[in-house]
Amino acid sequence: MPAKQKTLEDLFLVTLKDVYYAEKQILRALPKMAKAVESDELRQAFEQHRTETDGQVQRLEQIFEQMGKRAAGKTCESIQGLIAEGQEIMEDFEDSEALDAGVLAAAQAVEHYEISRYGTLKSWAQQLGMNDAVKLLEETLAEEKKTDQLLTRIAEAAANQKAAA
Amino acid sequence: MPAKQKTLEDLFLVTLKDVYYAEKQILRALPKMAKAVESDELRQAFEQHRTETDGQVQRLEQIFEQMGKRAAGKTCESIQGLIAEGQEIMEDFEDSEALDAGVLAAAQAVEHYEISRYGTLKSWAQQLGMNDAVKLLEETLAEEKKTDQLLTRIAEAAANQKAAA
Repeated sequence: MPAKQKTLEDLFLVTLKDVYYAEKQILRALPKMAKAVESDELRQAFEQHRTETDGQVQRLEQIFEQMGKRAAGKTCESIQGLIAEGQEIMEDFEDSEALDAGVLAAAQAVEHYEISRYGTLKSWAQQLGMNDAVKLLEETLAEEKKTDQLLTRIAEAAANQKAAA
Repeated sequence: MPAKQKTLEDLFLVTLKDVYYAEKQILRALPKMAKAVESDELRQAFEQHRTETDGQVQRLEQIFEQMGKRAAGKTCESIQGLIAEGQEIMEDFEDSEALDAGVLAAAQAVEHYEISRYGTLKSWAQQLGMNDAVKLLEETLAEEKKTDQLLTRIAEAAANQKAAA
């Protein structure tokens, strides 16, 4: 008996679960990253993004609800890998002058993953006519892009400061 | 005995090895992705990007050489996770109308990972005064961004075609 043909809605739901799992992992990783870094500005950026991530999780829960589905995560190997790499940098570069640069870069890799996933989800939601979901996904996407830009600014400022020192 | 203080150059080298490993994994994944999809345009995009990736691997080898280091990969859990997720989509959505959309999205997640890593490497190379490396990393970064944009265009065209059908 052939399995029921899977649709774009199925793909959207699988990816929504994947991102939901990812955001929950990020919620747990951010305080560790904030604690590890030297720079107050970078620590504040991580703390602020943790608060934002709380809101992003709630938006995802609203989308599950709109779809009449239970909010549930699905193990996302990508975010596991990204977080494991960040963890490794924190261990290997502890007490190094390059620690902050490494943790910041790991955080940007996570941001780019999220930007890619939310961009995809938004485009699929548009195709599926899920207008309320589109709005929620847009809000989160804008936050992720802003966080990535903030991290870039912090990295550049640190580099300039070092060059001037 | 305390370990020698690690520097930004150490961080650059670790990340270079990570990306070198990632590109080699991508070289192996792209033909599978090209084979899996329905759309000729998407298949061609994957095939073209495979050729580009060959060149990107060579650029990384040039940078290792400039640093007087042996070109060597370092297991990159992020790319392993990203590729595993793409593989999963290919299996779970085989024969589904949403297969191409899923594989395309997985490829974009990989592109975003690379964009993030090459952006970071370029910025560190600038700080380290590695001008030849900066140029090579810029070339690859431009290619990755172009590939991401091409994938977005293919996704949008497919969505519009479906809406008009």
